[in-house]
Amino acid sequence: MSDIRKIAVLTSGGDAPGMNSAVRAVVVSAINSGIEIVGVMRGYEGLIDWETQPLGLADVRNINNQGGTILFTSRSERFLQKKYREQAAKNLRDHDVDALVAIGGDGTLRGAIAFQNEGINTICIPGTIDRDVACSEYTLGFDTAANTAMEAIDRIRDSSVSHGRCSVVEVMGRKRGYIALWAGMATSADAIIIPEKWDGDYDSIIDTIKAKHADGRNSYLVVVAEGVTDAPELAQMILDKTGIESRVSVLGYIQRGGQPTAKDRMYGSLMGAYAVDVLKKDKANRMIAIKNDILIDYDIKEAIDIQNNQIDSFQYELSKLLAE
Amino acid sequence: MSDIRKIAVLTSGGDAPGMNSAVRAVVVSAINSGIEIVGVMRGYEGLIDWETQPLGLADVRNINNQGGTILFTSRSERFLQKKYREQAAKNLRDHDVDALVAIGGDGTLRGAIAFQNEGINTICIPGTIDRDVACSEYTLGFDTAANTAMEAIDRIRDSSVSHGRCSVVEVMGRKRGYIALWAGMATSADAIIIPEKWDGDYDSIIDTIKAKHADGRNSYLVVVAEGVTDAPELAQMILDKTGIESRVSVLGYIQRGGQPTAKDRMYGSLMGAYAVDVLKKDKANRMIAIKNDILIDYDIKEAIDIQNNQIDSFQYELSKLLAE
Amino acid sequence: MSDIRKIAVLTSGGDAPGMNSAVRAVVVSAINSGIEIVGVMRGYEGLIDWETQPLGLADVRNINNQGGTILFTSRSERFLQKKYREQAAKNLRDHDVDALVAIGGDGTLRGAIAFQNEGINTICIPGTIDRDVACSEYTLGFDTAANTAMEAIDRIRDSSVSHGRCSVVEVMGRKRGYIALWAGMATSADAIIIPEKWDGDYDSIIDTIKAKHADGRNSYLVVVAEGVTDAPELAQMILDKTGIESRVSVLGYIQRGGQPTAKDRMYGSLMGAYAVDVLKKDKANRMIAIKNDILIDYDIKEAIDIQNNQIDSFQYELSKLLAE
Amino acid sequence: MSDIRKIAVLTSGGDAPGMNSAVRAVVVSAINSGIEIVGVMRGYEGLIDWETQPLGLADVRNINNQGGTILFTSRSERFLQKKYREQAAKNLRDHDVDALVAIGGDGTLRGAIAFQNEGINTICIPGTIDRDVACSEYTLGFDTAANTAMEAIDRIRDSSVSHGRCSVVEVMGRKRGYIALWAGMATSADAIIIPEKWDGDYDSIIDTIKAKHADGRNSYLVVVAEGVTDAPELAQMILDKTGIESRVSVLGYIQRGGQPTAKDRMYGSLMGAYAVDVLKKDKANRMIAIKNDILIDYDIKEAIDIQNNQIDSFQYELSKLLAE
Repeated sequence: MSDIRKIAVLTSGGDAPGMNSAVRAVVVSAINSGIEIVGVMRGYEGLIDWETQPLGLADVRNINNQGGTILFTSRSERFLQKKYREQAAKNLRDHDVDALVAIGGDGTLRGAIAFQNEGINTICIPGTIDRDVACSEYTLGFDTAANTAMEAIDRIRDSSVSHGRCSVVEVMGRKRGYIALWAGMATSADAIIIPEKWDGDYDSIIDTIKAKHADGRNSYLVVVAEGVTDAPELAQMILDKTGIESRVSVLGYIQRGGQPTAKDRMYGSLMGAYAVDVLKKDKANRMIAIKNDILIDYDIKEAIDIQNNQIDSFQYELSKLLAE
Repeated sequence: MSDIRKIAVLTSGGDAPGMNSAVRAVVVSAINSGIEIVGVMRGYEGLIDWETQPLGLADVRNINNQGGTILFTSRSERFLQKKYREQAAKNLRDHDVDALVAIGGDGTLRGAIAFQNEGINTICIPGTIDRDVACSEYTLGFDTAANTAMEAIDRIRDSSVSHGRCSVVEVMGRKRGYIALWAGMATSADAIIIPEKWDGDYDSIIDTIKAKHADGRNSYLVVVAEGVTDAPELAQMILDKTGIESRVSVLGYIQRGGQPTAKDRMYGSLMGAYAVDVLKKDKANRMIAIKNDILIDYDIKEAIDIQNNQIDSFQYELSKLLAE
Repeated sequence: MSDIRKIAVLTSGGDAPGMNSAVRAVVVSAINSGIEIVGVMRGYEGLIDWETQPLGLADVRNINNQGGTILFTSRSERFLQKKYREQAAKNLRDHDVDALVAIGGDGTLRGAIAFQNEGINTICIPGTIDRDVACSEYTLGFDTAANTAMEAIDRIRDSSVSHGRCSVVEVMGRKRGYIALWAGMATSADAIIIPEKWDGDYDSIIDTIKAKHADGRNSYLVVVAEGVTDAPELAQMILDKTGIESRVSVLGYIQRGGQPTAKDRMYGSLMGAYAVDVLKKDKANRMIAIKNDILIDYDIKEAIDIQNNQIDSFQYELSKLLAE
Repeated sequence: MSDIRKIAVLTSGGDAPGMNSAVRAVVVSAINSGIEIVGVMRGYEGLIDWETQPLGLADVRNINNQGGTILFTSRSERFLQKKYREQAAKNLRDHDVDALVAIGGDGTLRGAIAFQNEGINTICIPGTIDRDVACSEYTLGFDTAANTAMEAIDRIRDSSVSHGRCSVVEVMGRKRGYIALWAGMATSADAIIIPEKWDGDYDSIIDTIKAKHADGRNSYLVVVAEGVTDAPELAQMILDKTGIESRVSVLGYIQRGGQPTAKDRMYGSLMGAYAVDVLKKDKANRMIAIKNDILIDYDIKEAIDIQNNQIDSFQYELSKLLAE
């Protein structure tokens, strides 16, 4: 029998669709196990300022289909300082909270590791659209973001085909190219530029477009992960070297929001319930992750060095093969 | 009984959802009236180069739900010159085409007026997402674009609310503010900046945001039509004067594409069939338009001066009233 | 200067997307005019039982994108009896409510007319997906429902085309065929059966399908408004007389829900604000309606006999013409 | 170096979103490997009648986002008879086809096993929305179908909540409950009935609803896989025993169609390319499958007995836990 009597839950870092399903599963699982639960607002910020609200079943009813996070979120600068982490830990102790569930990305995990030194047991759930938490094959929000980016590119291509243009589309994923890879393959992109594989070989992209142009193709699509290269420069280069009108679209924040897909709702539910299971087994300081599509948990300090989530080489090679 | 034996159809200018329904209706109506029909590729460009294909029922089957235009489109610089219009007119005469149906915006209408001098009977159908053909209350593509912009802003706001930010979203509509007005009202924008009404009064926007902030609101939305003001500058100004983090999103080309809404499919069908009806009545050089939600037709030279499509003042005042 | 100090608002009958925008506009307009506002739950039922809540700006924030109605709804049997209407009127008087805004369909309008005899000033807003309030060209929810039905039929047709089948799809609209007409035209239906025009001529539908089959078509689509004919019987008849496998789909309740379209959010906002304007002008017992796409208001007793919303003959004839 | 010079590809059984991506990947991979490729229409039927077309890159351009299958499909009764399989095998040999790629469900796999006796090398790709090919954790179309069902139920629930009703929604999945399980969990269903777990215990469902009703809940959702129980009878039972109005929705064919999700496009691409890789390695009669989210291949005769795709017990238990 677990000694856990009361837990807190928060969402931190960039918001991601599916966070609400995870929050709901934590709340329902906790309550069904007789554990009291408190929601912390705006991530670690709300922990420092003790901005909280008790959570009951009615508070999480029908939130599965809501984008964003009902607990709000932030990137806390203060939590990087020990004095604020001490304040946050004191707040939790003063309110008899036995453990914290933190849903977010790498920054959230690092925060949890630092927090372990203040004696707070934290369970992390990977939630970030970029799928860039290295230890987990999946992170909440990726599936929704990939579909949103794909649908946006489908739209852009309607116009691109009608006008006989080249579209250069920048998507999110500064550190991991999965959004670009999935959205690009799903929309038959002629080239996909991702941080893991980009070698600066613009010439091969230009040559691909020229070859297709010679074959009679009249519209083209290049998908670029943000931060890897400069999309407007690339478009200009394509125009200069091929004579084909090229236009840039930056998808931006639309990729963060929206009603979550079935996968993000399901995996959010699974991860949230699993986190409570871990606590009930008196495990402490664990990172929930997906490996081989199975739920597992790691020690949070070890998790930071695990690399399950490298870009899939077969998928990447295939993206080049299918860029016919 | 009409003397029309063969007609041509083209799409010109920016592509707009619903153009395909109009093309389909023109083709089916013509064929059912015993009129032969030829499709001209890439707008007036294809007319000059006689890039065409005969159109039958099978060519337009199930195209209602396709974005873009199956006939492709362009903004033809050459058609601005008389010698190319003469070439285009000669092509049509050489192929025994009695009349042309041209689907597009203001530029398309101006082309048709110039073309009248070459002796070619042209019927215009208003198609442009911006709803900026002054003589018609409705132009094909607006409804789809307004919904696309709205759904994108819904997504952006999920993230904006989660982080407690101000979002400044730039939508299309350089000359007419209807996309901004509809998408902004539909998403409860705190301020909407449109070309018809913008007086440069940034202070009132800042004051609105400050007042709401004082009331406890923590996220804000400003929708801006492109070209009216500089979105990044506005976001910086909001940050500087209110201290609220402000982020810019430029929706861009996603607003042009996508599967058309029911309205764009229906009005495309109505306008296409009406254009053939007009031809069958031996009317020449007419602009199809919507007035009081009813199909009418104008002489194309007179149409250019008709102003049915001013921004609706009740709608605009309401947008300010509802920006609670 | 109006004498209105406090008003109540309710939604009644079948729920319709856009009702929330109308509620929001009533609330914001009232508050901005210094009028107190109370929300009545579950339509006329909540009026009888005085199930209410005060409404402030925060209660209607960001509800534009929510389907259904935040005030809940019902079809009240009790309100058909005078004693319950007296009770409801007494409740309103006891709480110093000067006027009622009721959003709904024909039943709601009839309730308001009866309520006028109890001395209660009621303003009606037409809200029903079927677009079957005769005095108004538009009723809230139709645009969303038409798009939902269209998208569902687009999906059904993917499967129908892949298998070479005939799909018979039943949509809502027992008294008015607009959902069937719009969704059917938008999806290139081969036949559309609506209550206003159906003459029982099954043979012409069979003949149409046979003729297309002879021409090499291999999939077919028939859209039927509910209650006009028996969809399974029709499918069986098509199979028996043409040998083509025919399958029935009944779209059902998906047509009522979902995030409202831009039009339903905009027209909900317009009608809600207009209703408060009418009250501020000390007009009583008015029905808000759309005529020639313009907002107008009728006396509620006269409204019941006005027929703006007949099925559009051009649209219907066109649907037959385009069923190529 | 492989001896494969020419292959055929077909889709068979129920159509599933993602089949087109698989076809495209087969075509592009084959052509890029110097292998000629022919498309067979309407599944095994087209093999018997040699209804085919050569496939080039242009034929599969931009088909990733199309629902259904461009090769059409069927459930072939004739292929169950040896004489027709002999005819089909003869056709393939007469046209120098070295191998067949067949995309479909269990029936397709059984057809391929029988076809092995005619000396035809067949590679199978699992494609069916029901995810009911036992040897593979994933089958093309499931993700799209689960999302379509989920979105439809989201809509139904808007209306259900507004009226205070119980909705009983029947989804596809006669043999495997995954669509019901995912769509039900994603929409916070109060009960989910699936073939693997249903024990006929209606009382527990009634008791759950009664308990929630006593707690103040006013709307309920039960998701049922088709064929497991009678949805109208269940709805009547709920009404009879709880007094709560209950309505049935049968989602039907909308679950088959629609633009594929990112996952179905990606996994279709992966499986199609992998099938050609298998052929290039001179492997014969293989079933492509997913195990632990990794692509593998089985001998088709052994595949029929492998059970990777049992219903996930953690997911099912969780669905009961979260039905708060």
